[in-house]
Amino acid sequence: MKRIDWNTLGETERDAALARPAQARAQELRAGVERIIAQVRSKGDAALRELSARYDRCTLQVIEVDEAEFAEAEARLMPELKAAIREAAARIEVFHRAAAPQPVGVDTAEGVRVERMLRPIQRVGLYVPAGSAPLPSTALMLGVPAHIAGCREVVLCSPARADGTCDEAVLFAARVVGVHRVFKLGGAQAIAAMAYGTGSVPRCDKLFGPGNAWVTEAKLQVSADPGGAAIDMPAGPSEVLVIADAQANAAFVAADLLSQAEHGPDSQVILVSPSPALLDKVAAEVDRQCAELPRGAIAEQALAQSRLIEVDSLPQAVEVSNRYAPEHLILQVDAARDLLDGVESAGSVFVGAWTPESVGDYCSGSNHVLPTYGYARSYSGVSVASYQKQITVQELSPAGLRAIGPCTATLAAAEQLEAHRRAVTLRLAALEDRT
Amino acid sequence: MKRIDWNTLGETERDAALARPAQARAQELRAGVERIIAQVRSKGDAALRELSARYDRCTLQVIEVDEAEFAEAEARLMPELKAAIREAAARIEVFHRAAAPQPVGVDTAEGVRVERMLRPIQRVGLYVPAGSAPLPSTALMLGVPAHIAGCREVVLCSPARADGTCDEAVLFAARVVGVHRVFKLGGAQAIAAMAYGTGSVPRCDKLFGPGNAWVTEAKLQVSADPGGAAIDMPAGPSEVLVIADAQANAAFVAADLLSQAEHGPDSQVILVSPSPALLDKVAAEVDRQCAELPRGAIAEQALAQSRLIEVDSLPQAVEVSNRYAPEHLILQVDAARDLLDGVESAGSVFVGAWTPESVGDYCSGSNHVLPTYGYARSYSGVSVASYQKQITVQELSPAGLRAIGPCTATLAAAEQLEAHRRAVTLRLAALEDRT
Ligand SMILES: [Zn+2]
Ligand SMILES: [Zn+2]
Repeated sequence: MKRIDWNTLGETERDAALARPAQARAQELRAGVERIIAQVRSKGDAALRELSARYDRCTLQVIEVDEAEFAEAEARLMPELKAAIREAAARIEVFHRAAAPQPVGVDTAEGVRVERMLRPIQRVGLYVPAGSAPLPSTALMLGVPAHIAGCREVVLCSPARADGTCDEAVLFAARVVGVHRVFKLGGAQAIAAMAYGTGSVPRCDKLFGPGNAWVTEAKLQVSADPGGAAIDMPAGPSEVLVIADAQANAAFVAADLLSQAEHGPDSQVILVSPSPALLDKVAAEVDRQCAELPRGAIAEQALAQSRLIEVDSLPQAVEVSNRYAPEHLILQVDAARDLLDGVESAGSVFVGAWTPESVGDYCSGSNHVLPTYGYARSYSGVSVASYQKQITVQELSPAGLRAIGPCTATLAAAEQLEAHRRAVTLRLAALEDRT
Repeated sequence: MKRIDWNTLGETERDAALARPAQARAQELRAGVERIIAQVRSKGDAALRELSARYDRCTLQVIEVDEAEFAEAEARLMPELKAAIREAAARIEVFHRAAAPQPVGVDTAEGVRVERMLRPIQRVGLYVPAGSAPLPSTALMLGVPAHIAGCREVVLCSPARADGTCDEAVLFAARVVGVHRVFKLGGAQAIAAMAYGTGSVPRCDKLFGPGNAWVTEAKLQVSADPGGAAIDMPAGPSEVLVIADAQANAAFVAADLLSQAEHGPDSQVILVSPSPALLDKVAAEVDRQCAELPRGAIAEQALAQSRLIEVDSLPQAVEVSNRYAPEHLILQVDAARDLLDGVESAGSVFVGAWTPESVGDYCSGSNHVLPTYGYARSYSGVSVASYQKQITVQELSPAGLRAIGPCTATLAAAEQLEAHRRAVTLRLAALEDRT
């Protein structure tokens, strides 16, 4: 892990210290994804079978998971895992319901009623990757808010294994959260199928979920096409920034850094502390714990690019964090909650010694689909609102039109929109005639 | 206006009847905007001066509006218009404050506190076009929610006139809603300046506002670049769909259709009714009123592609509307409010005879920056939430970790993320040692 002393750096060096690895949209990747999308649009299910054989090395008899496969998955799964999936879903539901938008109604003048009503996005597509391991937790994180929002058709795609079946835990999780249909599809072809529809896969209005570079590029392409689909947010590699003070438990801090590092070789891991001694202790702990991990080799690659940053105070640590805008921010300091007010940009924050980042990945109740790669400066994590439209409604009584009609007419005249003005004055004249 | 009998159409013909004009991202436009962005990024303010001279035909002495120009604008403006701008801002503020997201906090288990906190997007850029006329109302619609959200730096760009000054009403509106800095820039160069920053223009995290094809393409390009800026939503030509019954006032309906038509030749205007007699009456009224309009020639072009659709019932009219997903939906029917429950996709809804669409453009209080071109299926209009990030926070007590730690560990094991599991079990073991 690279050691950096923040206060010896100039502004350019500070930018460099917090730089993320470049995510060039390689021309090759772009063109490859364009080809896949075109193929799915023109040949539909046949293209999906062909692409699954080529990329996922599996022969798809049926593209959609049927009742028998769901039942078999449930029967095979360990009771302990089923219980954990149900428990996690329940806690995620509690928080997401509490944070769901509510209808609003207010009179902005006498007789001028303005409301906001909520409607689910009708058809949504969830993508659950299955790269190095299946991710039932992602099915929960995407499915629970879709269910609360009341989306009419919730479709989930996850790549099949070589034997043509889907991971049991993913299937069970999909059922627990009320996903309507599951398709055994991965990669750019899954995104294309949900964005444009095929014989088997229904066309979706908005697509959600993480994925590899192909999935990410495909989401970008379909979202730039007015005939495609909206997406939850742009994506990049996952990341954590930990702020720890001299009193922090170095073993806990190291464990949290390693949790992030094991996600993948491109994971970003940053520790910021005013205590040089703590930085030393954590570095040693990371080495010790990493050696014991099954995914230690992956974690080591991520750690090679990770940074230990020494600052002069906790407020400066928060400044560094805001400048980086991490997906996950862990506060392992005394009176951690006091730092919250200063946090400007982060996906999700973990407060205090007893809150490892892994609880947020699974079952504290918050969503783990979060803005990465600096997008936390302007984007938020997935929530019920991500699955809804907020429609405004206004209704004027005759008194309401009398109240705000003149203001409307004046502004319409200033903008040289005479028909807008007349739509008001015509009605005001009709009201005069009635009295 | 084209007359269509919905129930004589097959599905493909129905799609065609509601089709929007194709918005091809012409290769030429795309490349032209790429060039402008590259120029602004490499040459900064010098490029802005050069491009303003070329495209807006104005010589910019200073790019930023200074105090003297603000003061002069205020002095020159008619008191009636100033009062209308203030009144509109106040009503917009009432509704947007009422609909602003609130912080949330809930315990998802004993000792597991999960919260959502709100933070403004720090630096936002507002674009106010000045094509055929200046649009102070757009400055209000973009500036009020930015102010409520508490954005630290609110920047506004609007093209200068040939004499190098900005429209007085736009400047006054910007000041009323607390915009911090105004720059005399238009087109793709304004978007590039706000997305990447120049010597004069600060770099912004998110860009808002409508614009012509160049502006729209530039917003699309900077939002696809991780080093660029987020944007409010994709854009297309403005549109209205009116549902009217036999009792509707044909003159009112015609006035509303013309309000939309006068926005531009590519405006979309659709009237849906179960009453053939009403359709006839409105068509005649449109012709009569259009002849009197200063922008009648523009309206006529829009009307040439507009449609009068006959349906067999009001519920079917709502179905047609949901299929089209209009930016503006006007309900000019008896008991108009009863139709609201059936409305699935629309930007903003205008209920009843006394609610012309123009009140929503200016001062009912709802926002007029709305999803067009079918995007109302998955996007919402601009609101305070558009200017904020929602950051989740979790804090576990030792009891909280005991409560949800086992569930976390089970799921982490299922996903083969051993470091995630250990970050929990390590802490649980430490808790055991303490007791
Ligand atoms: Zn994780
Ligand atoms: Zn209008």
